[in-house]
Amino acid sequence: MSTPSLLTPQRTDFPRWYQDVIARAELADNGPVRGTMVIRPTGYALWERMHRELDDRIKAVGGQNAYFPLFIPESYLRREAEHVEGFSPELAVVTHAGGKQLDEPVVVRPTSETIINSFFARWVQSYRDLPLKLNNWSNVVRWEMRPRVFLRTTEFLWQEGHTCHATQADAREHAREVLTEVYGAFMTEVLAIPVIQGRKTARERFAGAINTLTCEAMMGDGKALQMGTSHELGQNFARAFNVQFLTASGQREYVWQTSWGASTRMVGGLIMCHGDDAGLRVPPRLAPVQAIVLVVKDDPALRARAHQVVGDLRDAGVRVALDERTDVSFGRRAIDAELKGVPVRIELGPREVTAGKAVLVRRIPGTKEPVALTAVVPETASALNADQQMLYDQALARREAASPHVESLDEALQAAAHGWARIPWSALGELGEARLAEHAVTVRCLTRPDGSLPDRGDEPDLIAWVARSY
Amino acid sequence: MSTPSLLTPQRTDFPRWYQDVIARAELADNGPVRGTMVIRPTGYALWERMHRELDDRIKAVGGQNAYFPLFIPESYLRREAEHVEGFSPELAVVTHAGGKQLDEPVVVRPTSETIINSFFARWVQSYRDLPLKLNNWSNVVRWEMRPRVFLRTTEFLWQEGHTCHATQADAREHAREVLTEVYGAFMTEVLAIPVIQGRKTARERFAGAINTLTCEAMMGDGKALQMGTSHELGQNFARAFNVQFLTASGQREYVWQTSWGASTRMVGGLIMCHGDDAGLRVPPRLAPVQAIVLVVKDDPALRARAHQVVGDLRDAGVRVALDERTDVSFGRRAIDAELKGVPVRIELGPREVTAGKAVLVRRIPGTKEPVALTAVVPETASALNADQQMLYDQALARREAASPHVESLDEALQAAAHGWARIPWSALGELGEARLAEHAVTVRCLTRPDGSLPDRGDEPDLIAWVARSY
Repeated sequence: MSTPSLLTPQRTDFPRWYQDVIARAELADNGPVRGTMVIRPTGYALWERMHRELDDRIKAVGGQNAYFPLFIPESYLRREAEHVEGFSPELAVVTHAGGKQLDEPVVVRPTSETIINSFFARWVQSYRDLPLKLNNWSNVVRWEMRPRVFLRTTEFLWQEGHTCHATQADAREHAREVLTEVYGAFMTEVLAIPVIQGRKTARERFAGAINTLTCEAMMGDGKALQMGTSHELGQNFARAFNVQFLTASGQREYVWQTSWGASTRMVGGLIMCHGDDAGLRVPPRLAPVQAIVLVVKDDPALRARAHQVVGDLRDAGVRVALDERTDVSFGRRAIDAELKGVPVRIELGPREVTAGKAVLVRRIPGTKEPVALTAVVPETASALNADQQMLYDQALARREAASPHVESLDEALQAAAHGWARIPWSALGELGEARLAEHAVTVRCLTRPDGSLPDRGDEPDLIAWVARSY
Repeated sequence: MSTPSLLTPQRTDFPRWYQDVIARAELADNGPVRGTMVIRPTGYALWERMHRELDDRIKAVGGQNAYFPLFIPESYLRREAEHVEGFSPELAVVTHAGGKQLDEPVVVRPTSETIINSFFARWVQSYRDLPLKLNNWSNVVRWEMRPRVFLRTTEFLWQEGHTCHATQADAREHAREVLTEVYGAFMTEVLAIPVIQGRKTARERFAGAINTLTCEAMMGDGKALQMGTSHELGQNFARAFNVQFLTASGQREYVWQTSWGASTRMVGGLIMCHGDDAGLRVPPRLAPVQAIVLVVKDDPALRARAHQVVGDLRDAGVRVALDERTDVSFGRRAIDAELKGVPVRIELGPREVTAGKAVLVRRIPGTKEPVALTAVVPETASALNADQQMLYDQALARREAASPHVESLDEALQAAAHGWARIPWSALGELGEARLAEHAVTVRCLTRPDGSLPDRGDEPDLIAWVARSY
């Protein structure tokens, strides 16, 4: 079912389509303070599932959750020169509290490297304390000049990991492990988004890092979105905050560190990667509601049957919801399920049920066909599996088709008008990168020719992925 | 095993014992901005479990999670007179952001009634939209003059529920349902804390509410701690923010509302209700780690056996951890497990294992006995069950013993020196309540004589529970 009347078509105006989906699917609203957002239940349920899936993967690589304060003394940020330079323009500052002016202004955290390192300095004493891998789920504030819901908001929700290691090699390996095993695996397997996992150029690096790794995804309009980053911090913050440990042989050394984060921005990426003119399409493995059972007409026998189908699906491990609001028109409820991207809709009408059937509507391929009531559970399960893969395949095919290999800066600019371009880093270089920037085109990341993550920034034959981005 | 040398004994100095436990069990640290706290992994794991258990119960009574912004325009708070009066002295105010002075100062949320109602005014149109039950997990800021970790911190983590109903009766019933089925059930069944569920007097009501219900717990020193509150807001905020709906008969009416919250303060309550001179005692149903398997000596056969025991316990659904850090002394690791309150410790030493045995140490009763290796799983499961109940029974017995029935204000004051007192509300009254307050003794709540929650504040024979409190 297509619902062109509800949403601005993607081809007409993609940014407006994005705003329409967010409003009509009741995902979020703008908050009263510029750039803030309210995440409504339908949108929050997506984030909750992302949170849970990422949290499991973070714990699987040894991360432990903790909580660090929202408020950071302004002086902390100044201790790492590049870091404060990068974040100063975006800070929100508390100057008054408890009815008085504060002696030292307090910054609302834009990220927590500084405050966390001030505690690492106390907690890390010996090599036995390493590696130390903490993760914090929280809200952060960066005052945005051009806010856009989910993608660039003054306040956003995220997790930030912060780790200490005894050696540079161990820190490097952890930054890579988080990028590939936590972020990359989650995004490809659960979000069904084929992300390019690469290395940022010096120009695009996190303020204070010696190396930034990134997951980049192509949106429906061909632009890129940075979905998550993992940084090697070297010993920059360790020196600034004096985080030292005693080695097994009795020497004092600075720790080697990483930090890494992924945020509610991923919700925006999900919408823009998979959505179509009828609304959101949620990958089944992520979907808070994988199947919705819709009672077409007010009829006790239908309702009873629907409850039974819901029970059977739940027993089979499907996240299922029941829609028996027969005082709302069937069409409106069907459109609502389409807008919200529920992968499978099972419609129970009087005629079908009398014939021992239901109608199974698959949001992702857009098919609609009768199934025997006795086959609803296996048909739903197989649809969920197949459609997860289909969503991924579609996104991958789009990216492949819109990421030509080019050899010159002009060709790259041309390709970036509609999609991405792959260009040898040696043919582009930092000067070329600066010229691209004049056209709002950036190097999203560097990979090896086969698309894999390089070990170093000076490997030969690196490929630069260039694009306009959100 | 008792470890008197590590902690100040409770009888010597209860507040200092509390601080000692928090430091030694590595639960939390003070943040650099006065009154803020860092919740360390061991403390955060407790909160994570509380979050999960409460979240399930909130969803079971129809709550949907959402997220509202941290920043609230200052003008919003002024719209409800009692509310702004109650919170003004505690506000943290952002005056500068993005490098500029803001046109209107922005308040860091102390609670979210105002901003949420500004959205309810848009979302609620018809009786079909009701009831609307939203819940927000977040951090809030109240500038505290006398901060104390977990109990009273400038920033804390909590959930706040906000609901709209078509009738006063429905709102009242929901406020009661949340208090009893969400908070009360969670605290008694999971935290093993026997809470008194009662009604606040007008003096102790939430700023802006027409009725506040509360769960009150007795701490180890006899003081009371408010563990969670559920408010009937009447139509106060609905009028201030113009939240109206169209009834089935076509009239416009203001909604009736509730709000309710529970916070990281519960972690403090858990420590002070169940802790002893050896540290924390965590109720098994809450415990992030229910059983820890401790390898006594560096020996491959012991390690192999330990891994097997851990696997068996995990398969049986026990949350289990393995401690095979044989480079740290056995005594130190045992003390650490005691401090952190792990309910069951299974020690595998060479002699015991050769004899086909392990030593099972139960933190709550403080017993230590050999068990056959083949019986570790059932013995652990039955210890976890029994000790959950024991913890509850101990807390209940202490409260009963220290809550005498009294008839006069003087007797009440006397009892409140060491515990609580129950006094007929008719014998105390608001004047008596004011006199108690001069001695820092407050009416924690009103219940019926049998301890049950009254329907109204003017029921005859109400009992006032009076105490000093945190």
